Amino acid sequence: MDLATRVYNHAWRLDPIVRSLLDTDFYKLLMLQLIWRLYRQTPVTYALTNRSRDVRLGEELDLGELREQLDHARSVRLSHKERLWLGGNAFYGHPQIFQPDFLAWFADYRLPEYELARDGDQIRLAVHGTWAETTLWEIPALSIISELRARRAMRGMGPFELDVLYARAKAKLWAKVERLRALDGLAISDFGTRRRHGFLWQRWCVQALKEGLGADFIGSSNTLIAMEEDLEAIGTNGHELPMVVAALADGDEALRCAPYEVLRAWEQVYGGNLRVVLPDTFGTTAFLRDAPAWVADWTGFRPDSAPPVEGGEAIIDWWRAHGQDPRDKLLIFSDALEVETIEAVHRHFLGKVRTSFGWGTHLTNDFEGCATDERPGLSPASLVIKVTEAAGRPTVKLSDNPRKALGEPAEVARYLRVFGQEGFAARELTA
Amino acid sequence: MDLATRVYNHAWRLDPIVRSLLDTDFYKLLMLQLIWRLYRQTPVTYALTNRSRDVRLGEELDLGELREQLDHARSVRLSHKERLWLGGNAFYGHPQIFQPDFLAWFADYRLPEYELARDGDQIRLAVHGTWAETTLWEIPALSIISELRARRAMRGMGPFELDVLYARAKAKLWAKVERLRALDGLAISDFGTRRRHGFLWQRWCVQALKEGLGADFIGSSNTLIAMEEDLEAIGTNGHELPMVVAALADGDEALRCAPYEVLRAWEQVYGGNLRVVLPDTFGTTAFLRDAPAWVADWTGFRPDSAPPVEGGEAIIDWWRAHGQDPRDKLLIFSDALEVETIEAVHRHFLGKVRTSFGWGTHLTNDFEGCATDERPGLSPASLVIKVTEAAGRPTVKLSDNPRKALGEPAEVARYLRVFGQEGFAARELTA
Repeated sequence: MDLATRVYNHAWRLDPIVRSLLDTDFYKLLMLQLIWRLYRQTPVTYALTNRSRDVRLGEELDLGELREQLDHARSVRLSHKERLWLGGNAFYGHPQIFQPDFLAWFADYRLPEYELARDGDQIRLAVHGTWAETTLWEIPALSIISELRARRAMRGMGPFELDVLYARAKAKLWAKVERLRALDGLAISDFGTRRRHGFLWQRWCVQALKEGLGADFIGSSNTLIAMEEDLEAIGTNGHELPMVVAALADGDEALRCAPYEVLRAWEQVYGGNLRVVLPDTFGTTAFLRDAPAWVADWTGFRPDSAPPVEGGEAIIDWWRAHGQDPRDKLLIFSDALEVETIEAVHRHFLGKVRTSFGWGTHLTNDFEGCATDERPGLSPASLVIKVTEAAGRPTVKLSDNPRKALGEPAEVARYLRVFGQEGFAARELTA
Repeated sequence: MDLATRVYNHAWRLDPIVRSLLDTDFYKLLMLQLIWRLYRQTPVTYALTNRSRDVRLGEELDLGELREQLDHARSVRLSHKERLWLGGNAFYGHPQIFQPDFLAWFADYRLPEYELARDGDQIRLAVHGTWAETTLWEIPALSIISELRARRAMRGMGPFELDVLYARAKAKLWAKVERLRALDGLAISDFGTRRRHGFLWQRWCVQALKEGLGADFIGSSNTLIAMEEDLEAIGTNGHELPMVVAALADGDEALRCAPYEVLRAWEQVYGGNLRVVLPDTFGTTAFLRDAPAWVADWTGFRPDSAPPVEGGEAIIDWWRAHGQDPRDKLLIFSDALEVETIEAVHRHFLGKVRTSFGWGTHLTNDFEGCATDERPGLSPASLVIKVTEAAGRPTVKLSDNPRKALGEPAEVARYLRVFGQEGFAARELTA
């Protein structure tokens, strides 16, 4: 027994969950650079929404403990090694994707203050500030809450029960890996940071895919894990860009154009392979109907809330109508993926279009049936942190699934009027 | 990382499998004391038999490696702590079961020389010497061969594949524990030393049963593990006693009485709760037919080769015929037990007789389907080390299952003439 290590571990005031600013999804860093360059001072608010109402966060979590973890995350700065890695690496064949002026600013960055309170049996967590300083809170806050829930669910378990718990979870994940191994030409990545069971578990899952799938495992959205495991960091952009740009738009016509304005901004900052469209913020059907022809030149689409086969086929039809060969194009699936979905979607599109899968919660937080007794706290919750206001105006997200819609009712009604609701279909929300 | 530990591990010439004379089945120590007291100088031979002819031990094992492990086991002596534990502990409510004169002799004991050679695709392993000095070789030699096979089967597996292997094996064992947990009034112990996957794995299995079954898990046959885990050491006697005593018998009538002579000797040395009859050495039907009435006073029987329900019922009938209430009696089952057998046998005898299960190979060596590729070397082999000669005469074992019969054909024929073969039924041999 290594006494020094043991004593050192005893002396930890807490076991920090987030220990690096890179322990976040890579797309947040790409969006951050764009925001910092183009919308730096825009004041925004981010807030937590718990879509799993049966999960009583206010009762499950100890607010003092949560505050300690959030405060610890606020104390973390970019390390020298991380800055060199970000600055020196080529991503998607794009040299120096993070430019020196941005990195100089980021080197001094720390997460800003937050507001946290109990709210009945739930909690209220919000961040106010400029867009550039607040946007990074989303992922560490979610992964802290997710890991704290798991830690509390495991409290009181003996070393033996824990051993069985992880043995079962590993066996379960490996069974999935063996199924995925059977899919020829699969391209899959880890998208599981925000709802992971824990950091170390996410890293184990990534190692499992790396070992089991070889080159079919294309990387991780988690920047720190990608760096540590020498993998590609994966991701492009998310809903917050169109949500904020839409809220900033003056009038309905400007609102209708906002999604394409975001693409123009993205192309200006990145271009190349990073040109992946996230079309569903205000409904994919409306997006495709009104899209300028140049959108068809982009590398791919990430349908994120439509049923994957129908959603993908609609995009393929649209590419064809714009004279594109879908076999040169890419569809990225990342919504509520389970092995069965991945198998079905991969087989459906094989030979028709290139596909790639961003596997989230069912990769990094599947402990269903793994505890030796009932532990509901080990089930992931459908938590999101979304931008709710920009420059004093409420933001809206419609998506292709009305159950994922977010925003004030009056604003939602206005957006529905501008974009229509053609193609919407309610689907069960899973974590 | 603890550099000192790491360097220390590098400096090991080998990773020894057997590190204690107590890493053996407790019944061997009980038999040893009896042998030492009554038959100390009888010359005997023990030899390895591989009943799994498809397992080519001569090809699977490196003889140099096997020799190193056997030689290491020969270097091991009883430690001071072990001697105190053996001498001070009460077993089965019997204070000081190991007496000071025996312990004084045992304190200087070491395993004797052995003969090892390749024999085609098999190996030949034999030990010659006095009964008291040779008997203990059986268990360490079997567990060394068993663990060396597993180690070779795992050679070349990466840390990740090993992680998955053990995760799956743990998940598998825990599923069995959960099934056994559902059996009210179960009494089960570990009998898995001789065919275990490895020492550390056996210890994990014992911890699993201890944690999962609570008081229904009554202990381990492995003396070292019982000591380390503060459990009861379990076991009474085995076939070698009647086999040697029968070989020493002059003439057929003395042969017919030999099984009861063994019981008299046992009673003289132990008595009390340790009075468990192993009736099948020369056939249970013959044993019961010829048994003196006082055998019905013994605590219980361990039917070891008859089908468990039929075998148990025959013994119950015999108890009743001798005026005994079977509910005061004990049946111990230990032959090729799987969860299904344990469930069926437990349910069958519930309320009729006390039962107890000695769970062996399927507890400590079930890696079926756990490797990420095909590894036949991870399947246990049906290996036994049996006494083959005593005082220059060949020994015989008939058992209730003709496939388990051992001995020279002429002697087997004579034993069959003396004991008959009523009640024999061939059953598949599993490890």
